[in-house]
Amino acid sequence: METTLETLELPVDGERLAATVLSPARRIPGVLFVHGWGGSQRHDLRRAREIAGLGCVCLTFDLRGHERTAALHETANREQNLADLLAAYDWLAARPDVDAESIAVIGISYGGYLAAILSTMRPVRWLALRSAALYPDEHWDLPKRELHRRSDLVAYRLQRIDPEANRALRACARFAGDALVVAAENDAVVPRPVTESFVTALGRGARSLTLRVVPDADHALTGKASQQAYTTHLVAWLTEMVVGARRDEAKARVVEHIGREKAGLSS
Amino acid sequence: METTLETLELPVDGERLAATVLSPARRIPGVLFVHGWGGSQRHDLRRAREIAGLGCVCLTFDLRGHERTAALHETANREQNLADLLAAYDWLAARPDVDAESIAVIGISYGGYLAAILSTMRPVRWLALRSAALYPDEHWDLPKRELHRRSDLVAYRLQRIDPEANRALRACARFAGDALVVAAENDAVVPRPVTESFVTALGRGARSLTLRVVPDADHALTGKASQQAYTTHLVAWLTEMVVGARRDEAKARVVEHIGREKAGLSS
Repeated sequence: METTLETLELPVDGERLAATVLSPARRIPGVLFVHGWGGSQRHDLRRAREIAGLGCVCLTFDLRGHERTAALHETANREQNLADLLAAYDWLAARPDVDAESIAVIGISYGGYLAAILSTMRPVRWLALRSAALYPDEHWDLPKRELHRRSDLVAYRLQRIDPEANRALRACARFAGDALVVAAENDAVVPRPVTESFVTALGRGARSLTLRVVPDADHALTGKASQQAYTTHLVAWLTEMVVGARRDEAKARVVEHIGREKAGLSS
Repeated sequence: METTLETLELPVDGERLAATVLSPARRIPGVLFVHGWGGSQRHDLRRAREIAGLGCVCLTFDLRGHERTAALHETANREQNLADLLAAYDWLAARPDVDAESIAVIGISYGGYLAAILSTMRPVRWLALRSAALYPDEHWDLPKRELHRRSDLVAYRLQRIDPEANRALRACARFAGDALVVAAENDAVVPRPVTESFVTALGRGARSLTLRVVPDADHALTGKASQQAYTTHLVAWLTEMVVGARRDEAKARVVEHIGREKAGLSS
């Protein structure tokens, strides 16, 4: 972002009044949503419409193997879905109205896993992981559906995994931006040790880390109360991030301005 | 504001993924600050730097008779200061990045009085009055300083004034936007009846009215706690207004989009 402060003179009745204008950056943050396996962009739109209120460009999309490309459901793999996510990211970051240095990625379950990995390949300033899943690094190119047959994912997800022992966790351990982790209290698909592994990894280098647990909630956040709790946590966090970043920039410009004025007065 | 929702296709590996982009309006709200008699834009800059975080263009300026034009302190009158305010408003509204239909005016004391009157002369969507003062309509062209000698302002401000009996209150009674009134609990300059008169007048037609009283505070909001309380109320209110307006627009676009999709599916 590049907030600006300019001084000017307002002419009125032959007088010139001193004035100051503080403008936010012309380019605004971009927010990219990544749905979970079996989901679709439709669900993300509910959150996007809340977040658009912050003055961000929001992009939702359907991962390969879903909706229009449902025919690929049995064959789509992680490499392909990561390519999907990269294509969506690159489209968003290339928009002339988007600040490519201020991109948030919000992923759910499998989408959270992919979002974490994306952060090593593209600049991600804000990373939100809701019920993010973990998969062993092996069989990277196998169809995603096949992974559940080849690996004992249930057993894998009951262990705490070392940050260096998993691609998504390695990405989190190297992530230097701000992170939000939202977990469902009674998540049978992504049990608590997975959340703990993400928190441990993000704790290594994140500028900030916010963990919120939705009580009495399952993996799908079934029920209006759980959905609303997630939305509330997500919007509050992103408000703090986006509004806070703009406010910090504006404060810096005002402090510089007052410093220059004082220097001018004393010289 | 004009939030937009567009659907697009993301090409990746020969597939075309469905995507949706939700963008806020290109033009953003403008926020105009009007200081009180004896004040200056310097004080408003503290608030402006907080509010710039919402993604608004903020304009502060020195009223005639202050700072660089202090030589006019004894002669400046309401007509002139209203002309100053109009000049500042018109400069802000004419900026290509400002949405002239989404302008907030934030006035303190005499500046609040002028801001109320401005709302009958220019579109004001959001009006914030902090310790707004009242003056009798008579002697409009007298120097502002002279008013205090000619009128018994102390007695005038201890009465509840009918909305039709004062120019600023008539303006408030006709104001159809959202209003914030912030009063200091122990304000000896603008005592409670003045605040009551503003509240009564705004209650006639405002879309929303928010009254907040800063406890143990004097007219100048002396002390960090009182200043901070005012900033908190102002930022919270303007966040609700600006973010809420953008969110409502985004919601409307998403609801239309889903309606069109459903109509498409059933046709």
